[in-house]
Amino acid sequence: MSVRLELIALDGIGEVAPGDDLALAVGRGLGASGLELTDADVLVVTQKIVSKAEDRLVGLDSVDPSDFARDWADRWGKDARQVELVLRESAEIVRMGPGGLVIGRTRHGLVCANAGVDVSNVGGGEVASLLPVDPDASARRLRDGLRMRLGAAPAIVISDSFGRPWRNGIVNVAIGAAGIEALLDLRGQPDAAGREMQATVIAVADELASAADLAGGKVDQRPVVLVRGYAWRPSEAGASVLVMERERDLFP
Amino acid sequence: MSVRLELIALDGIGEVAPGDDLALAVGRGLGASGLELTDADVLVVTQKIVSKAEDRLVGLDSVDPSDFARDWADRWGKDARQVELVLRESAEIVRMGPGGLVIGRTRHGLVCANAGVDVSNVGGGEVASLLPVDPDASARRLRDGLRMRLGAAPAIVISDSFGRPWRNGIVNVAIGAAGIEALLDLRGQPDAAGREMQATVIAVADELASAADLAGGKVDQRPVVLVRGYAWRPSEAGASVLVMERERDLFP
Repeated sequence: MSVRLELIALDGIGEVAPGDDLALAVGRGLGASGLELTDADVLVVTQKIVSKAEDRLVGLDSVDPSDFARDWADRWGKDARQVELVLRESAEIVRMGPGGLVIGRTRHGLVCANAGVDVSNVGGGEVASLLPVDPDASARRLRDGLRMRLGAAPAIVISDSFGRPWRNGIVNVAIGAAGIEALLDLRGQPDAAGREMQATVIAVADELASAADLAGGKVDQRPVVLVRGYAWRPSEAGASVLVMERERDLFP
Repeated sequence: MSVRLELIALDGIGEVAPGDDLALAVGRGLGASGLELTDADVLVVTQKIVSKAEDRLVGLDSVDPSDFARDWADRWGKDARQVELVLRESAEIVRMGPGGLVIGRTRHGLVCANAGVDVSNVGGGEVASLLPVDPDASARRLRDGLRMRLGAAPAIVISDSFGRPWRNGIVNVAIGAAGIEALLDLRGQPDAAGREMQATVIAVADELASAADLAGGKVDQRPVVLVRGYAWRPSEAGASVLVMERERDLFP
């Protein structure tokens, strides 16, 4: 029997504003899409609406850039206030590159361009969106909210788009998760040929985030995607297990 | 209206052997799964069966390791013949790490563990599988074969599992492609708020490879996944556009 998965980008989520209850927004989207949520589903939600709902928005006018931020911004024709926010959001700078690109390691251990600070797609031109303070906690809150309001507790993945070394283009990865084993550990299991599998630990939460992006898209902006038919394994560990331990990292 | 994608891992592909016609194998799988192929579909095919069909298999007994390979293998308890193959498949060594891990940059520009040399899941314990010589050409051949044999020319993505810096676990990425714009360039298009999108070039072929892995899986080994409902854009450029130009690369 063939295995079938469905990716359904929900309609009718609408604009999300600071203080909004995301579980209600998801409920709206499910209703508009004629769908009922089940415990077996996965919901992939973009970081953007989570950050908005949690009011992780900063008016650039309120930011006073350091001299270092001003110098870098001047050198590359960037907005010094945005550079300042990127520096503040970085626990560590991994690279500063041509074009003014800053790759930061956030306090969560996420390595990404601009340390997740995003000025596009936020209402008004002068507002920056920061990553959630604790994306795993955000995912757990949404899961609890859905359980309470809709009576179903699907797996939750919070996605954001990251660049990668050596490869062009961005892909969506998981910055937060709840309910699901984000890192599926198949070591020790037999493969189809009956041999024990080696080194097979799959970042399924990242793959779910990437899959959802195909349905949700960048232009259409459907920020919530329902994944149906994927047999996820339960775990309380969240997406933080996807962050590589520094001592294992060959690319500091 | 909600957007729906389907990921269908084909049943009935069976074992693939050197010299096999993959278009026939795919036809078998579609028949067993009760599906008819269309030009609008995407087929994601694992590197493993492409390499097998193209006889990119090397008996380890035929490999005579260099002193360098022997030293490294001795130091980390590895098979020197396998290390030798990894070195031969590498245009350049990117890192040699604890545990004997070798990260190689292949002639295609792919940066991955063991330069794509894989000894698991290949019939017999002493056979290594190498990456296809030209994965984009492999994808084009499969597409041509499907057009000829089944009368449909879907987009083709050839996938393989790669590790990543800073993140635990492997994900599937695209090492070859045919028909599809692997790198979807949305720069200059307006976003949902009507602003011009910046820096939005999406590695959709990588996202398709990751999505397919959720349906095909590692244990079940369904090596061909049909993606239905994804509005891909046509291109003849293949997946080689996903390989970052060395001068843009901040992580040499």
